[in-house]
Amino acid sequence: MIATTGDLEELRRQIGLWRGDGLKIGFVPTMGYLHDGHLALVRRALALADRVVVSIFVNPTQFAPHEDFERYPRDERGDLAKLEREGTHLVYLPTRETMYFPDHATWVTVEGLSEGLCGITRPHFFRGVATVVTKLFNRVQPDVAVFGEKDYQQLLVVRRLVRDLDLPIEIVGHPTVREPDGLAMSSRNAYLSAEERRIAPALFRILRETAARLARGAEAAAELEAARQALLEAGFTRVEYVELRHAETLAPLERASEGEGRLLAAVHLGGTRLIDNVPVRPDEG
Amino acid sequence: MIATTGDLEELRRQIGLWRGDGLKIGFVPTMGYLHDGHLALVRRALALADRVVVSIFVNPTQFAPHEDFERYPRDERGDLAKLEREGTHLVYLPTRETMYFPDHATWVTVEGLSEGLCGITRPHFFRGVATVVTKLFNRVQPDVAVFGEKDYQQLLVVRRLVRDLDLPIEIVGHPTVREPDGLAMSSRNAYLSAEERRIAPALFRILRETAARLARGAEAAAELEAARQALLEAGFTRVEYVELRHAETLAPLERASEGEGRLLAAVHLGGTRLIDNVPVRPDEG
Repeated sequence: MIATTGDLEELRRQIGLWRGDGLKIGFVPTMGYLHDGHLALVRRALALADRVVVSIFVNPTQFAPHEDFERYPRDERGDLAKLEREGTHLVYLPTRETMYFPDHATWVTVEGLSEGLCGITRPHFFRGVATVVTKLFNRVQPDVAVFGEKDYQQLLVVRRLVRDLDLPIEIVGHPTVREPDGLAMSSRNAYLSAEERRIAPALFRILRETAARLARGAEAAAELEAARQALLEAGFTRVEYVELRHAETLAPLERASEGEGRLLAAVHLGGTRLIDNVPVRPDEG
Repeated sequence: MIATTGDLEELRRQIGLWRGDGLKIGFVPTMGYLHDGHLALVRRALALADRVVVSIFVNPTQFAPHEDFERYPRDERGDLAKLEREGTHLVYLPTRETMYFPDHATWVTVEGLSEGLCGITRPHFFRGVATVVTKLFNRVQPDVAVFGEKDYQQLLVVRRLVRDLDLPIEIVGHPTVREPDGLAMSSRNAYLSAEERRIAPALFRILRETAARLARGAEAAAELEAARQALLEAGFTRVEYVELRHAETLAPLERASEGEGRLLAAVHLGGTRLIDNVPVRPDEG
């Protein structure tokens, strides 16, 4: 049986024992309902560290009241079976009650990077993410933590807070894992109907085609508008954003030649919100 | 000679060696220009831990542009001599450049406790304090840190952020150290002219007298107004606030009998801002 705990003291005791033995600790924070994308992060952590802790916690503070906190998919038994097969050493399972005091009042915010893109429609999202990640880092005290590039803006926010708050943790970004048809793996794909699932891969296809044209020197404004139209024509209900940004600062780019670029998008398909992103590299154009 | 470093890697190496030897680390963060109040915190830390680190850093992010960051008193040589006499094991001396990246973007905020009292005239003060204290804690990684009750609201903000962000650090509050005439020791007392220095002890005297009347059951509103008048009559230029608050939540109290109370004040004397606070304990009234 895989080792699990919801108890902070027990977690700290185990981590302390490992650290006392000079072992390197890897960490993968998740919201559960694990897919191959999560498991790729776990395998990466296992390659980088001697012991790997995975947390499963659907964090209420990163959901707005109208969002899907209550219906977010959960499958603890299935998650533990998958994590055991990968060789995870410990699964940390805090509850809302053991994670937040009723009068919790402290927030970690990352200015700039948290604004724009997903920060527009989800204004408290990155505050919730930055705060819970800081808390989990202080609880687990890992040497290295692995995050997926699928949540690209989140990866940059986490990298920045670790740098700015002097957390002695290495943050590793891992490439997005995709279904055979290109759809980025996401727990929220479970929300898609069969018809929506057929449309969904167009997000990656259109992003990749747009990135290729941008890499060849096309002006961003026209390409992004064309991508927006293509997404709507492909069947997405709404396009929240499609933007070309600098890959590290997220500053808007007018052309890919201005710096290392990242093309990021958020779209809606019925009641489901999907995000994806791809690199834009002029030298590969 | 006392050991000092401005280098984060060297700091972490030394702390790591101590920790490897199973030694308990104590920490006292200061802005320098040390007086007996600071040294009392250092002695308390020495009593609580095996090794004590003191930091000296005048933190720019807790000063507003119009405040006294540039003229804040500094005396590194004198500070090091005092710390050496106390038996401090290591003094950490970061610079603004090694503490903050030019594009620093991450802030720690504590809602509620940071609002009101000093938070009204110094709206970014506690954000700056909470952020630099979190950074220093992550750099030094102490087991215990000692803060003065003189900065009472700050002490509560630090306690709360440590609790809310799960920092594995014990926060110890130490009673205010006073001059023989009752004036709370403060680096800013150096700003006072001889005439102002003569007036200054009236702050503690009036707070103590008011606290005694509140402890005997007097209604706060009338007593606080009387204290405000007494402060102005004693010669203070301006009374920023005199308030009776709950000692832990800082919620306003109408009578001392409603809970464990704390009477807090901020006054101006010429160009100098002074703060002080005293406990209000009904059973001692």
